[in-house]
Amino acid sequence: MSIRLTILGCHSATPRAKAYPTSQYLEINNHHFLIDCGEGTQRQMRKYKVGFSKINHIFISHLHGDHFFGLIGLISTLGLLGRERELHIFGPKDIKKMTLMQLKITQSHAKFPIQFHELSSKESEVILDDDKVTVKTIPLKHRIYTNGYLFIEKEKPKNLHIDNIKNYPEIDRADYLNIKAGKDILLPSGEVVPNSELTLPPKKPLRFAFCSDTAYKPNIVPLLRDVDLLYHEATFLDDRKDLAKKTMHATTKQAATIAKDANVKQLILGHYSGRYKDISEFKEEAQSVFTNSHLAEPGKVFTVL
Amino acid sequence: MSIRLTILGCHSATPRAKAYPTSQYLEINNHHFLIDCGEGTQRQMRKYKVGFSKINHIFISHLHGDHFFGLIGLISTLGLLGRERELHIFGPKDIKKMTLMQLKITQSHAKFPIQFHELSSKESEVILDDDKVTVKTIPLKHRIYTNGYLFIEKEKPKNLHIDNIKNYPEIDRADYLNIKAGKDILLPSGEVVPNSELTLPPKKPLRFAFCSDTAYKPNIVPLLRDVDLLYHEATFLDDRKDLAKKTMHATTKQAATIAKDANVKQLILGHYSGRYKDISEFKEEAQSVFTNSHLAEPGKVFTVL
Repeated sequence: MSIRLTILGCHSATPRAKAYPTSQYLEINNHHFLIDCGEGTQRQMRKYKVGFSKINHIFISHLHGDHFFGLIGLISTLGLLGRERELHIFGPKDIKKMTLMQLKITQSHAKFPIQFHELSSKESEVILDDDKVTVKTIPLKHRIYTNGYLFIEKEKPKNLHIDNIKNYPEIDRADYLNIKAGKDILLPSGEVVPNSELTLPPKKPLRFAFCSDTAYKPNIVPLLRDVDLLYHEATFLDDRKDLAKKTMHATTKQAATIAKDANVKQLILGHYSGRYKDISEFKEEAQSVFTNSHLAEPGKVFTVL
Repeated sequence: MSIRLTILGCHSATPRAKAYPTSQYLEINNHHFLIDCGEGTQRQMRKYKVGFSKINHIFISHLHGDHFFGLIGLISTLGLLGRERELHIFGPKDIKKMTLMQLKITQSHAKFPIQFHELSSKESEVILDDDKVTVKTIPLKHRIYTNGYLFIEKEKPKNLHIDNIKNYPEIDRADYLNIKAGKDILLPSGEVVPNSELTLPPKKPLRFAFCSDTAYKPNIVPLLRDVDLLYHEATFLDDRKDLAKKTMHATTKQAATIAKDANVKQLILGHYSGRYKDISEFKEEAQSVFTNSHLAEPGKVFTVL
């Protein structure tokens, strides 16, 4: 049970010599997810040694170029690499129409199936649910239909409390699976041993929330309650809060306020406007509201165990 | 009268950490052209200090991703930069449909007009002709409809042969424009001084030809005759000529043979396959056929005066 998040790009608007638009690679409970895919993402994946083949799910927050213009190039590359396994793409309506047109016009060699999951709900919904994770949308507030994503590890089976189990020689190893599954044990004597005596609670499932792009939207706080790791955009410092409001982005203090109100464990900031040459002030300003705030930077890895 | 060519990207297929797909910035006779626009081109433009605002014409050779996936990102950035001036885009049919769909779906802010010049002819044709340059297509042979481009400086007016003019005190400065325009001069005496005596020939107009992607296609040689600078793709070394033929690309020796047969002055190679870690062999192999062969490399500038 662990989260490992690699920042591939974390700047807003336009790629520059050392500024890559949004993309993150999330490893969670043996899933490998790509979140957003700005222009140049595949180059950043090569640079930071992110495996192309492990990714089976791509989540696109919204259809502004700095969040998805790298998608068609990545899909084409997967085709050139000989991929055969199905790829799932989650994103707003029209992502399918556009991608298929690009593949057709470029006479792409991509032979693997692509399953598009087009989103249009304004309420949070479960969009992926398997034995490893649950993924929910986080409806955001931007100039165009936008979702954040909440990634939740599936609860693990309980751990055996071996010391206590040894007190009951009648309990056989064959019972262990039942005990892990939460069942009480009936002894030959007729005594029932409650499961709580035979098990230790499993490690709490970890959660990561990705929120970009968005204006300050306090009503997402309940969805983010107590998450282990929150990425929240902070395009501007507090001195530009009027511009943030106008462009439907957040300021550092607003991102930190969301983190504080939701009692998250750690906050990552990103999506910095190109007008700031030095991003260190983003961290200082956020920490004045929420201490455990950190800066996204290309290649930086955040790990939660 | 000069050519200055900046290589922005020169590798084939997929962007890698230090390998950018095709894009070149051509300054010729005060025009600023972008030729092809693979993913990451705008980042390379920033890196190599290529001005965004001077470009009014973009030429796309063909609709494979490594030659145009950066186009929509560049157009979006021009919009964010507040461009108002018209942009001309030359490329194969469908480039308009795809670009307009991308702009619509992304709700782009690009407010400047875009004039699409969709190409479909299989014969060379003049696609731009103004007071500075003429641009012709070079029909190439690839898996998809592809054109190279031939850029020809416009002939300058003749230069005044001042020493000879001084022999005729009757010739006034007011006549100089007529002399530069090629006219003979009638003296008050009735004598006609032929223009050839009063002028020196202007510098020969320079020519640059861009040929990528293409299989070996000897029938382009007449179009390339004596050009000052030729870029010709060389995806493979001679050892992979079978693969070159199959994928409709050229080998180094084939590119050099085109250069030699067309008697060009200088050859630039590029579009190297990712399978070659060291590209120095491309130069050696080409030079065994055509001495003045050089390697395209990101950021490298080729100048012809």
